[in-house]
Amino acid sequence: MLQAIYEHRGPVPQDVIDAVERETPTPGIGEVLMEVLAAPINPSDVLTLTGEYGMLPPLPAVGGNEGVGRVVACGEGVDGLSRGQTVLLPVGCGSWATHVLAPARKLVPLPDDADPEQLAMMTVNPPTASLLMSEFVDLQPGEWLIQNAANSGVGGYLITLAKLRGLKTVNVVRRESAVAPLQEQGADVVLVDGPDLAERVAEVTGNAPMRLGIDAVGGAATDHLASALSDDATLVNYGMMSGEPCMVAPRHLVFRNLNVKGFWLARWFQHATREQQQGLYGELAGMIASGQLAARVHARYDVADIKQAVAEAASGERSGKVLVTPAG
Amino acid sequence: MLQAIYEHRGPVPQDVIDAVERETPTPGIGEVLMEVLAAPINPSDVLTLTGEYGMLPPLPAVGGNEGVGRVVACGEGVDGLSRGQTVLLPVGCGSWATHVLAPARKLVPLPDDADPEQLAMMTVNPPTASLLMSEFVDLQPGEWLIQNAANSGVGGYLITLAKLRGLKTVNVVRRESAVAPLQEQGADVVLVDGPDLAERVAEVTGNAPMRLGIDAVGGAATDHLASALSDDATLVNYGMMSGEPCMVAPRHLVFRNLNVKGFWLARWFQHATREQQQGLYGELAGMIASGQLAARVHARYDVADIKQAVAEAASGERSGKVLVTPAG
Repeated sequence: MLQAIYEHRGPVPQDVIDAVERETPTPGIGEVLMEVLAAPINPSDVLTLTGEYGMLPPLPAVGGNEGVGRVVACGEGVDGLSRGQTVLLPVGCGSWATHVLAPARKLVPLPDDADPEQLAMMTVNPPTASLLMSEFVDLQPGEWLIQNAANSGVGGYLITLAKLRGLKTVNVVRRESAVAPLQEQGADVVLVDGPDLAERVAEVTGNAPMRLGIDAVGGAATDHLASALSDDATLVNYGMMSGEPCMVAPRHLVFRNLNVKGFWLARWFQHATREQQQGLYGELAGMIASGQLAARVHARYDVADIKQAVAEAASGERSGKVLVTPAG
Repeated sequence: MLQAIYEHRGPVPQDVIDAVERETPTPGIGEVLMEVLAAPINPSDVLTLTGEYGMLPPLPAVGGNEGVGRVVACGEGVDGLSRGQTVLLPVGCGSWATHVLAPARKLVPLPDDADPEQLAMMTVNPPTASLLMSEFVDLQPGEWLIQNAANSGVGGYLITLAKLRGLKTVNVVRRESAVAPLQEQGADVVLVDGPDLAERVAEVTGNAPMRLGIDAVGGAATDHLASALSDDATLVNYGMMSGEPCMVAPRHLVFRNLNVKGFWLARWFQHATREQQQGLYGELAGMIASGQLAARVHARYDVADIKQAVAEAASGERSGKVLVTPAG
């Protein structure tokens, strides 16, 4: 089997990772061997390779944090799973590989008629999008919110989930070519970022209250969002796509009482009850399986081409997620 | 009489203000005429001249927000005040003047034996210092906090008030020459700002928890403070001495759950009860009158020299507050 392995971390993520041939393991007691159907390359995966992420696995490590597999062999004592079953891979399993070995109790069986590529992206981005809208401000149906990096994976899920909750979204992107796909997806408003963002937002929303801003860019883009928010609003950062620190003019904090926070799914898991976790994932899985919630796919790569896949995922100019699809 | 008047606002504060000769008014019913003993030039006054402050009076306006005066004439119906009495001037009265006319009911009589220059600075900076330490984090005696702009007016009061509450302070300044005065004042730790601030703070405090950071500088200095804070800490901005936006790396927000807020005394006044306001000012006035709480004075100017006074107050290299002392 092939695994995408990194033995050290460094500033150019595709330089540290490589596809390595390994002997395909035989499942032991309670274990299951799966072939990987699809596994996304998320921004958090890129930051794990560069060493900038908040949690770093010991080295050497296999890349990939989530994905979908198909059972090829079960070890002794495995009940309820059989060859051919599609399953959700456990978080952090090293999913950029042709095969993954995992304990059967960590696997979640998936419906056969759902798109495995869409299910492969359900563990990280959809709950992030959902929780960004619910954990900080008690938004009411009809209210507006504003996000940047709106053409990211999280951004796309957020547009759909907001619409289902009766919320209206201002979606900020960094280039004109990203506007049309979001409009086609049904985004209420799409604007290209700039220093005059606040004026344009006020005009297009009729000066509507804007109590929640969601930032995944940093740098001056954070301040543009801050300018577009109402007094007493909350600005939540969850990403660093510009690589720059978040900038917020003191006047927004001091005179307008903005509150700046961060969101990290890993921390939510530490605090959320098992019921909350199951409730959220159950809801999202249903919406993804039914096709109600979907992400765009920009490109698909074999494990052998992991360097090219990671380079493409790390570059800004994409129209969707980069997937590793060894047997897709 | 002389008043420091501005008819428009602009980027160079000393260019917009000028001392103008006016006829000294005669107090009407319930009014009192005072000669001004001392009135400080605060950073908020400079921002009011440049138009960057959160509340701007209609133009033309007399500069100066606080100060101490001595009664020279009382109108009909004024009880309990007589010629020679020292009084606290009402907030926003235009205190950069040789004389101020105000309703008697807005005046607070002051003890004759206290230093009028110190009392002239009590309305704005001491409550800001006090509330920065109490409004955001429930600090316990023995705990550390960290502030920058520690040699500012607020910074100096904060060092003294923290000590009285049993709190320990790391005080960050922007130049070596500011270290010694703060050490003489009794500051626990004084450090010159830099990208390695967090390492030096950890070393000098023995890795003590640091749940509150207080920023009045902005720019990279905000991120240096953020780096020195514990996970889940609160970072409060109340000033913009660098003129740059606050910068905070996303990792502090996302992975370390820092919360960034702002403090504005004017907003506190909107929410605080009359009892809370009287309690705070009563406590601070007693400490200032007794000499327990004091600010350094860098220079004193007549109203006629208001341009020079404002220019000096707006420059960074000061060792204390600039005062307008028409009859001081």
